[in-house]
Amino acid sequence: MQEFAVINRFFTNLGPETQEVVKALGDDCALLQMNAQELLAISVDTSVAGRHFPVQADPWAIGWRCLAIAMSDLAAMGARPVGFTLAITVPEINSAWLSEFSQGLQALAQQLNCSLIGGDTTQGPLSLTVQVHGAVQKGINWRRSSAQAGDKIVLIGKVGLASLGLERMLQTPELAKRRQAWLNPEQAYMLPKPLIQEALSLVDAAIKVRAAIDISDGLLADLQHILTASNLGAVLDLAQIPIPEELLAVYTPEQALAACLNAGDDYALLLTLPATEVSLVASLIKDFALIGECVIGTGITDAQGQVITPSGYQHFIS
Amino acid sequence: MQEFAVINRFFTNLGPETQEVVKALGDDCALLQMNAQELLAISVDTSVAGRHFPVQADPWAIGWRCLAIAMSDLAAMGARPVGFTLAITVPEINSAWLSEFSQGLQALAQQLNCSLIGGDTTQGPLSLTVQVHGAVQKGINWRRSSAQAGDKIVLIGKVGLASLGLERMLQTPELAKRRQAWLNPEQAYMLPKPLIQEALSLVDAAIKVRAAIDISDGLLADLQHILTASNLGAVLDLAQIPIPEELLAVYTPEQALAACLNAGDDYALLLTLPATEVSLVASLIKDFALIGECVIGTGITDAQGQVITPSGYQHFIS
Repeated sequence: MQEFAVINRFFTNLGPETQEVVKALGDDCALLQMNAQELLAISVDTSVAGRHFPVQADPWAIGWRCLAIAMSDLAAMGARPVGFTLAITVPEINSAWLSEFSQGLQALAQQLNCSLIGGDTTQGPLSLTVQVHGAVQKGINWRRSSAQAGDKIVLIGKVGLASLGLERMLQTPELAKRRQAWLNPEQAYMLPKPLIQEALSLVDAAIKVRAAIDISDGLLADLQHILTASNLGAVLDLAQIPIPEELLAVYTPEQALAACLNAGDDYALLLTLPATEVSLVASLIKDFALIGECVIGTGITDAQGQVITPSGYQHFIS
Repeated sequence: MQEFAVINRFFTNLGPETQEVVKALGDDCALLQMNAQELLAISVDTSVAGRHFPVQADPWAIGWRCLAIAMSDLAAMGARPVGFTLAITVPEINSAWLSEFSQGLQALAQQLNCSLIGGDTTQGPLSLTVQVHGAVQKGINWRRSSAQAGDKIVLIGKVGLASLGLERMLQTPELAKRRQAWLNPEQAYMLPKPLIQEALSLVDAAIKVRAAIDISDGLLADLQHILTASNLGAVLDLAQIPIPEELLAVYTPEQALAACLNAGDDYALLLTLPATEVSLVASLIKDFALIGECVIGTGITDAQGQVITPSGYQHFIS
């Protein structure tokens, strides 16, 4: 799927920008001018059955997940959810499935305090496209391109768990069907929590976040997105990466660390900020880890100066 | 596909509405509070290969069409295009196809003076979801529910042509592949023109449009949407429905009229407005027809009082 980034070249600079467009492609969200106080952040995510979730997966969880992964992009921009749309393509009308699906969607919408504002229903292979809309206070500029040398790199949330959950569901397809049977790893994959509250608590506390991204592709890959956009390198303190105990139960320590660095789908947040902000963030956020620093240069090294290369650790459902 | 409307019951009142939501489900667009002068209109449309367009269709035209049908909803709200997103699902990376597709998208974006502001690229069965965003001046309230008894019913644009175009492409699949070979009917289906300029000219001239809808399901079906929402009936003057000569060349006059009344996919506009506005609209719009009047009551009749029932004239590609 990595090569799919290639096709973005067909979609850059497509059409003349209106005065409302503040930021288009290249960040977690597009930004539109809204009013004197706020911008509107927009992000869209498609979940294809058999590709982004097992076809037979618990429909309640599919509903939750398709909204969660889109909302995670709002968290990465420091945006408050305003509402979302759903374009749903289903092969047939299955009322039991749709009812469960909509209840999962509803559960997360309630938690995030926003509603479904529009949509489209079509017939075809199962696929869900969710677009989220959020309000960003002016002055909040969490962009991939705004990291600075000397910024501390902070991880909020867990990484590595989701890929183990997916692996287990692929090994035991029956497991995907009932969310009641899921342990932390399956929950991490199918029921990710978008870190909206965590992001908004930083906004409310006026924390000077410089760059931010949500970890969908993997910690190293997404950190590299910030570094490339900001023209920087980074030094990581690998001992500070929190390794979930579930990984240590089934992998060697080296494999477990590799999963944390490379596996995607956990929807944690990665931030860079001035060193002076770190203690305040640590006091506000429970799942917090100070994992490194941005430096002048390129690439990512460990504390001993060894280059760390993303290993392209990826699962494909189909 | 009509029964697909049924599933909307799973998606109403889903989640708590934020203060920004002015209008959610039930109209051509959702409306968000933007600033003191404008609302943001939002609409999303999915086009599934083999369902909404022939799989082998000219990719340039697929690009144009997926944007056009979404933009048509902005026209029906009197909204100026601000930008759009594209969630594209493709089975494989085919550079020639993608290049043609993006050029068709680009051509319409240029014409409508707005740009692609975000998107998502995934692998799976070919499907395109476009979400459009437009600015609506406050005071412009083209809602389905705001027609009044005595309002004149005006048709802008052509109806009936697109279904003939689709029929011919289904009979001769080769025809779908090359847009250079298309005559008006195929163009009407694959290259519909969203009537944005026409709508904005009415806004600029301060025409008092009461209700509006774009004709995607068919003239009678979409008129009925307005009538149901406004709790009214209508009398149509069938002699005023403009029948394209291409239809008269292949159908009996009765069949041709039935196609104009029932066939979808032409993306014309249907408006209701006070009788005093009609002459000004006629002077502003070339493809204009005064086709009837809203009345107290239910259902649609002709000038002789005969009930006209939507015939459910529908094509299925697959």
